[in-house]
Amino acid sequence: MAPDPLSIADGPLVKVVDELVASHDGLTRRHVDCSCQLALPSRDALVEIIRDLRSVLFPGYYGNPDLSDASLRYHLGSTLDRAQRQLQEQVKRGMCFACKRDPRACPQCEQDASAVVRVFLETLPKVRHLLASDVQAAYEGDPAASSPDEAIFSYPGIEAITNYRIANALHKLEVPLIPRIITEMAHSTTGIDIHPGASIGGRFFIDHGTGVVVGETCIIGAGVRIYQGVTLGAKSFPLDEQGNPIKGMPRHPIVEDDVIIYSGTTILGRVTIGRAAVIGGNVWLTRDVPAGGRITQASAQEECFEQGAGI
Amino acid sequence: MAPDPLSIADGPLVKVVDELVASHDGLTRRHVDCSCQLALPSRDALVEIIRDLRSVLFPGYYGNPDLSDASLRYHLGSTLDRAQRQLQEQVKRGMCFACKRDPRACPQCEQDASAVVRVFLETLPKVRHLLASDVQAAYEGDPAASSPDEAIFSYPGIEAITNYRIANALHKLEVPLIPRIITEMAHSTTGIDIHPGASIGGRFFIDHGTGVVVGETCIIGAGVRIYQGVTLGAKSFPLDEQGNPIKGMPRHPIVEDDVIIYSGTTILGRVTIGRAAVIGGNVWLTRDVPAGGRITQASAQEECFEQGAGI
Amino acid sequence: MAPDPLSIADGPLVKVVDELVASHDGLTRRHVDCSCQLALPSRDALVEIIRDLRSVLFPGYYGNPDLSDASLRYHLGSTLDRAQRQLQEQVKRGMCFACKRDPRACPQCEQDASAVVRVFLETLPKVRHLLASDVQAAYEGDPAASSPDEAIFSYPGIEAITNYRIANALHKLEVPLIPRIITEMAHSTTGIDIHPGASIGGRFFIDHGTGVVVGETCIIGAGVRIYQGVTLGAKSFPLDEQGNPIKGMPRHPIVEDDVIIYSGTTILGRVTIGRAAVIGGNVWLTRDVPAGGRITQASAQEECFEQGAGI
Amino acid sequence: MAPDPLSIADGPLVKVVDELVASHDGLTRRHVDCSCQLALPSRDALVEIIRDLRSVLFPGYYGNPDLSDASLRYHLGSTLDRAQRQLQEQVKRGMCFACKRDPRACPQCEQDASAVVRVFLETLPKVRHLLASDVQAAYEGDPAASSPDEAIFSYPGIEAITNYRIANALHKLEVPLIPRIITEMAHSTTGIDIHPGASIGGRFFIDHGTGVVVGETCIIGAGVRIYQGVTLGAKSFPLDEQGNPIKGMPRHPIVEDDVIIYSGTTILGRVTIGRAAVIGGNVWLTRDVPAGGRITQASAQEECFEQGAGI
Amino acid sequence: MAPDPLSIADGPLVKVVDELVASHDGLTRRHVDCSCQLALPSRDALVEIIRDLRSVLFPGYYGNPDLSDASLRYHLGSTLDRAQRQLQEQVKRGMCFACKRDPRACPQCEQDASAVVRVFLETLPKVRHLLASDVQAAYEGDPAASSPDEAIFSYPGIEAITNYRIANALHKLEVPLIPRIITEMAHSTTGIDIHPGASIGGRFFIDHGTGVVVGETCIIGAGVRIYQGVTLGAKSFPLDEQGNPIKGMPRHPIVEDDVIIYSGTTILGRVTIGRAAVIGGNVWLTRDVPAGGRITQASAQEECFEQGAGI
Amino acid sequence: MAPDPLSIADGPLVKVVDELVASHDGLTRRHVDCSCQLALPSRDALVEIIRDLRSVLFPGYYGNPDLSDASLRYHLGSTLDRAQRQLQEQVKRGMCFACKRDPRACPQCEQDASAVVRVFLETLPKVRHLLASDVQAAYEGDPAASSPDEAIFSYPGIEAITNYRIANALHKLEVPLIPRIITEMAHSTTGIDIHPGASIGGRFFIDHGTGVVVGETCIIGAGVRIYQGVTLGAKSFPLDEQGNPIKGMPRHPIVEDDVIIYSGTTILGRVTIGRAAVIGGNVWLTRDVPAGGRITQASAQEECFEQGAGI
Repeated sequence: MAPDPLSIADGPLVKVVDELVASHDGLTRRHVDCSCQLALPSRDALVEIIRDLRSVLFPGYYGNPDLSDASLRYHLGSTLDRAQRQLQEQVKRGMCFACKRDPRACPQCEQDASAVVRVFLETLPKVRHLLASDVQAAYEGDPAASSPDEAIFSYPGIEAITNYRIANALHKLEVPLIPRIITEMAHSTTGIDIHPGASIGGRFFIDHGTGVVVGETCIIGAGVRIYQGVTLGAKSFPLDEQGNPIKGMPRHPIVEDDVIIYSGTTILGRVTIGRAAVIGGNVWLTRDVPAGGRITQASAQEECFEQGAGI
Repeated sequence: MAPDPLSIADGPLVKVVDELVASHDGLTRRHVDCSCQLALPSRDALVEIIRDLRSVLFPGYYGNPDLSDASLRYHLGSTLDRAQRQLQEQVKRGMCFACKRDPRACPQCEQDASAVVRVFLETLPKVRHLLASDVQAAYEGDPAASSPDEAIFSYPGIEAITNYRIANALHKLEVPLIPRIITEMAHSTTGIDIHPGASIGGRFFIDHGTGVVVGETCIIGAGVRIYQGVTLGAKSFPLDEQGNPIKGMPRHPIVEDDVIIYSGTTILGRVTIGRAAVIGGNVWLTRDVPAGGRITQASAQEECFEQGAGI
Repeated sequence: MAPDPLSIADGPLVKVVDELVASHDGLTRRHVDCSCQLALPSRDALVEIIRDLRSVLFPGYYGNPDLSDASLRYHLGSTLDRAQRQLQEQVKRGMCFACKRDPRACPQCEQDASAVVRVFLETLPKVRHLLASDVQAAYEGDPAASSPDEAIFSYPGIEAITNYRIANALHKLEVPLIPRIITEMAHSTTGIDIHPGASIGGRFFIDHGTGVVVGETCIIGAGVRIYQGVTLGAKSFPLDEQGNPIKGMPRHPIVEDDVIIYSGTTILGRVTIGRAAVIGGNVWLTRDVPAGGRITQASAQEECFEQGAGI
Repeated sequence: MAPDPLSIADGPLVKVVDELVASHDGLTRRHVDCSCQLALPSRDALVEIIRDLRSVLFPGYYGNPDLSDASLRYHLGSTLDRAQRQLQEQVKRGMCFACKRDPRACPQCEQDASAVVRVFLETLPKVRHLLASDVQAAYEGDPAASSPDEAIFSYPGIEAITNYRIANALHKLEVPLIPRIITEMAHSTTGIDIHPGASIGGRFFIDHGTGVVVGETCIIGAGVRIYQGVTLGAKSFPLDEQGNPIKGMPRHPIVEDDVIIYSGTTILGRVTIGRAAVIGGNVWLTRDVPAGGRITQASAQEECFEQGAGI
Repeated sequence: MAPDPLSIADGPLVKVVDELVASHDGLTRRHVDCSCQLALPSRDALVEIIRDLRSVLFPGYYGNPDLSDASLRYHLGSTLDRAQRQLQEQVKRGMCFACKRDPRACPQCEQDASAVVRVFLETLPKVRHLLASDVQAAYEGDPAASSPDEAIFSYPGIEAITNYRIANALHKLEVPLIPRIITEMAHSTTGIDIHPGASIGGRFFIDHGTGVVVGETCIIGAGVRIYQGVTLGAKSFPLDEQGNPIKGMPRHPIVEDDVIIYSGTTILGRVTIGRAAVIGGNVWLTRDVPAGGRITQASAQEECFEQGAGI
Repeated sequence: MAPDPLSIADGPLVKVVDELVASHDGLTRRHVDCSCQLALPSRDALVEIIRDLRSVLFPGYYGNPDLSDASLRYHLGSTLDRAQRQLQEQVKRGMCFACKRDPRACPQCEQDASAVVRVFLETLPKVRHLLASDVQAAYEGDPAASSPDEAIFSYPGIEAITNYRIANALHKLEVPLIPRIITEMAHSTTGIDIHPGASIGGRFFIDHGTGVVVGETCIIGAGVRIYQGVTLGAKSFPLDEQGNPIKGMPRHPIVEDDVIIYSGTTILGRVTIGRAAVIGGNVWLTRDVPAGGRITQASAQEECFEQGAGI
């Protein structure tokens, strides 16, 4: 009988492979129980889809710059058609990824993905309308912006909000995983981390943006402006009997219309920042602020001393 | 007469395209009134240009690593020649992008771009000189740096400062849009956001860097060292009658030579941080600091209490 | 004699090239004295290597998604074999890069690289084991995480920790430059900057992560959880006689098991944060905290007033 | 009511699009009646598959050159696994492409493709065995070949025969379209056009090869050697009542073992070239040649005069 | 004064560069006298343009395979719009390339290119009509073709004729250089060399095709079928006083409707092959053939003996 | 003991891999005995090298089109420097590939490659001079050529001759394998197969070219013109005692200055075609032709009858 080539020593390769094969125990090796296609969602495909949607939402700024009145319709139509087909594939993959633990949901994935993308498509004009208001807000809110063009073309805030608005529309349709990947793409390039589950009104402006975190259950009104390093996060989570955080509860701030929050500020918990309040920079805030209130680091701190407030 | 294929239902595609075509009203669809070429500035081309300029500024570290005494000149010459031609194209596109609202400036774009790039080229030896001082400062300022090589090759601070110094040279020549795109490229990969309009002296060192923001009208001396999360920003903007921020006013800090600013600190407004002052971390500062002053979070805070200072 | 083409005026190109050639004085032009290969470490190659190692550590999530029981071994084996050969090349280049100033170490580079990679390979099962615990911690620590899958597939914290754990294994083997490039790759895409020299136990969770800095000599226990914007840094460095920081000294915090540090907090110097302590957000901390201690911005501040502590 | 943008003149674009839409009448626009996936076979994917199979058939020459005894098995296994999965997808697409006119065959495509690829896989050792004999024949048949290595690595004849042997194995399994695409890939790069339906024995050598044509129903024995510009084609086809050629009949030559055919020769029709016959160059031949026969242009011509033979 | 780095010996590099710079004397170095843009026509761009045009001419076979009745128009429109803009750029470059020796024609290039492309666009429906007839002819003419689909998708003859028909339309519009590059692209991938100046009717079928040459002034009727290795070339050229061939004279065959020419045959000079004639394989023919004539190698040869015809 | 995953059935994959591993017996698996680097020559790298050399030989036509008098030298210098370094690597790999069976030659590979490339570099001005004459010949020889530019830019004959002249220079320096790969690259794209060992004088013109074969020991004078399908090959090879062809003997034609050979002609064996002879098309020729001789198919045939000449 011929010797097994695998038994021949070749440095540690064979030994290490054996150990790794033996050790993959279900947590770090992906097992798939349902019968749907194995293909994972593709980040590269999603990058393409977002690029296409961006050129549909901002024609002339992204994608083909040469758009006559006659050719505009052709380009919008063909780009949108391509985007919807590719998005449907990715949505289906996201559904299959998630249904891993609920195989019964699986035969539906293809159909569900198709239905979801149809509805998503119909929300695009509204998404475009919101983004137009965000661009206007960026131009008005930044003394360094020379034109709305510049904001569309080079502001990381607009990039992050665009990804968020698309992801949020998919999140509302209960698409798993894909919305998160879309906002993480913007998080990686802009440092702005908006959870797709957050609810955000029009005329939203984020300046500079690095380090901004907007949590899953935030509710943000219209005309809100925030700066780099602002966290709208959760306070200490309620734990269940096993000591694990209870998932899915409203736990992030409500920020009403026209609030401004300066850089480095952290607001935690289901507090409400009232209409047109102004929160200074580097503030640590875990309580409600009334409409029109002005909070500075000093005032916040003072109050902390009084309250001896914990985290 | 044949039926219009567009009238045949195909899911919501036709309807959505119609809505989008109808809704693009000038804000989010780019209209071009001047007769210059439509091509938009290309981020990919600018990435190539910066790569080329970096290999000219740090030969042997970037680009071709095999440079003999004889071939060095060939490689510098050909790389610089390629970079200048491609930069001229991008500068022209930036000018056309901007002249959209001032068509009379447009016939000049090609010529202006050529003139600008010539002058830019002549500033490169000075840029190289400044960057050499920045590299030295990084080596001296970071106990973890084992050699200047390592700083050139892997420090995000050096990457961001390189992009800034190139962008600033173009900004001084009043090139629109392009400088901002160049600094945003570094912002995206390093989290360091330096406005191309800022003025920064030699031996500038940014450690770690994520979240650093340096505003448009900052004036920074030589030998300044700053850490991650530092903001040199504007205080609340003076508003005009319509309630919009007035654009273009000096509104960011002046930081004199040899100042150190530790992580997370925010300095806002046209204040002056005097020579060799040391500002601790997480400080919120909106007033002048004398030369040699030392500000900590505690001392800054204390003062806030006294002043009850607003944002 | 024919005229030298270089003497013909061609705008400033020739003049600028001459100035640049003349000015490269050793700091910004790379000179290599040893006889080893000149090739620089390649970021693109390292991106590929990390991608391969990630698919070996998380089979089915990265790389080929279609892994049967029989083909798993083939794919692990071939991917690992490719990764080890490419890593050996990069390690050798890193050694050559570093030995530039110590030519005598150079003939050994090829052999040393081979030896190092063999040992590195043998640590991979342990790395995988640690990462599995990190994934579990992410799932348990984030109420927004719907499954460990989602953490593996889309959490920037997992990406940064994976790169760190690989880089740390190479750092312990005294590989120069390469570990730093690997962690900087993750720094660029996630905003999380972990020095490869840091020591970090299992079940480590970083949420959101933008702006996190973990210094070279940090020692972090098991089950630690930190949030965006947290700095574990060095206080003012001891200077040598020339006024330069002394390199290589323990100067970053020790964080014991199960500590939680909320967003925006800065901990500096060789202090110890005791087991299960909880540090609130935006805290500035430069002293030890006992096991089980709870520090908030208010309490930290109060103490600062008392101590009048400088930076 | 807003005017239809499409009615606005924009050069001939709209008019031409209308004409083209109206004129696609079924011949040049692809209509698909069955319910299977629309995706067309992908030439790029087939290029990858052939590359993978080639590296499995000639390990060390193609694909990874660094194969130890231990890693060889890993690389063969993973490459073959990838190739089989991708081939299955392409085979399925080929089946869907063909079933367009026979929708009933369609639901089977996925299953059929899987079954076909399994059988194909099992024929690979035999394909490898035949190709080894072809390489040996190339080395022995070409005085300019310095080693079998050189033949494997740079002979267009080996490339074309490799593609043919793979395509032929798929053709025997009645896979539509894909085999033809595989041989056309080699036709394009080598100028050698072998129909996948031809039957060819071992030790087959084609020298230079440009212009070689081997028809669908050829039967070629072992040890045959042919040169550039040789056609083994069909004579005038029998026509059916409509005057169209009748498809699928044996109509190309039978070439027995060890025959040599020199450059530029054309052999047409279901004739038999007997064992070890030698056919000179530029010969036009439409009749049987006995075993051991020697035909030159002169002798062929002479006979033609006698027969007054038509085409 | 510092020594000139170029004077330092570095192997033969400097010497060879000097020799090459000195020796480029106008023939092999491109000099441009006119003021138009220098950019050369781009083969890669033309590959893209042909790909786009092919997907417009054969929708569903090339380009996007998923075309509903509604989206077909969008895709045709956007693809054609992109193709026309890119073609205009290439046509302009071709004009600039050619005007090198006639600078006066140059200021017109941009306008001329635009006018030419408009007319070209309007011929596309006719080109599509001809190609549909070619596909039908391929299906009918090849017993191995199982469907017209297969011919469209994988026949080199269809590829070559498509490129020819596009190139010919541009050639008629007197576009320099570009038509030749387009037919050479197909020559390279199929071995079929059709000069764009040739005139070819509908239902043209080339089987196998490698080695086919169709000369500049050929006139080919409808329904002609030719096989691999057929040359329709020029006889010995009339020379001018300097002994150079006189350019531009009709010098290639006229081939009337429904002629068949078998493989390897060469027809030279301004002869006429009459309607429905059949020319056998490997024939050398330099005289007229009457309508319905049948020529074999034997009959052609016989006649040669009689005529003692030279080349 | 855990069951071996490989023993678990997974279709035929494991079985086929086992068979393939067992069957690779030395002919089709590459074994390397010498200690030199395993890396195979890279076709992609050679494509780049040829592209670089072509832009050095025809500046302005290939590579950078914007060459001023000043920048020309920089571009030639840097391109040539890059080409020489990459060529040295490929030459070394070719040497290592060949030394597989003569390990003693191996330690020399690096040095030998360096020496060879130096000499090669010094021949480039002569190569350029020859190619300039070839371009002139193409322009003069083809009535369809409108300028030498067109020949440089789009003639396959010029492409094939360029590759040949580079390959021949390397062949004379006894570089193994690489020259053949370089000529095969052109063979693949043009259908013109010139062995790098052939000797060819200046002003060489190949028109159309598909199917041209020029054998290893051909000697071709200056001013020779040949057409598509011409073979300059070997007659039946002398066999050694084992019945194998004896390698390396002069066995291909000598073609003297100013000979013209028309399409489809085959000339075999060490015959001499005398100065200015003209050989017609489709001729089969195996004997000397005197200077000024004119051979047609008829005259060649006639003679064959007389001689009853075999192959």
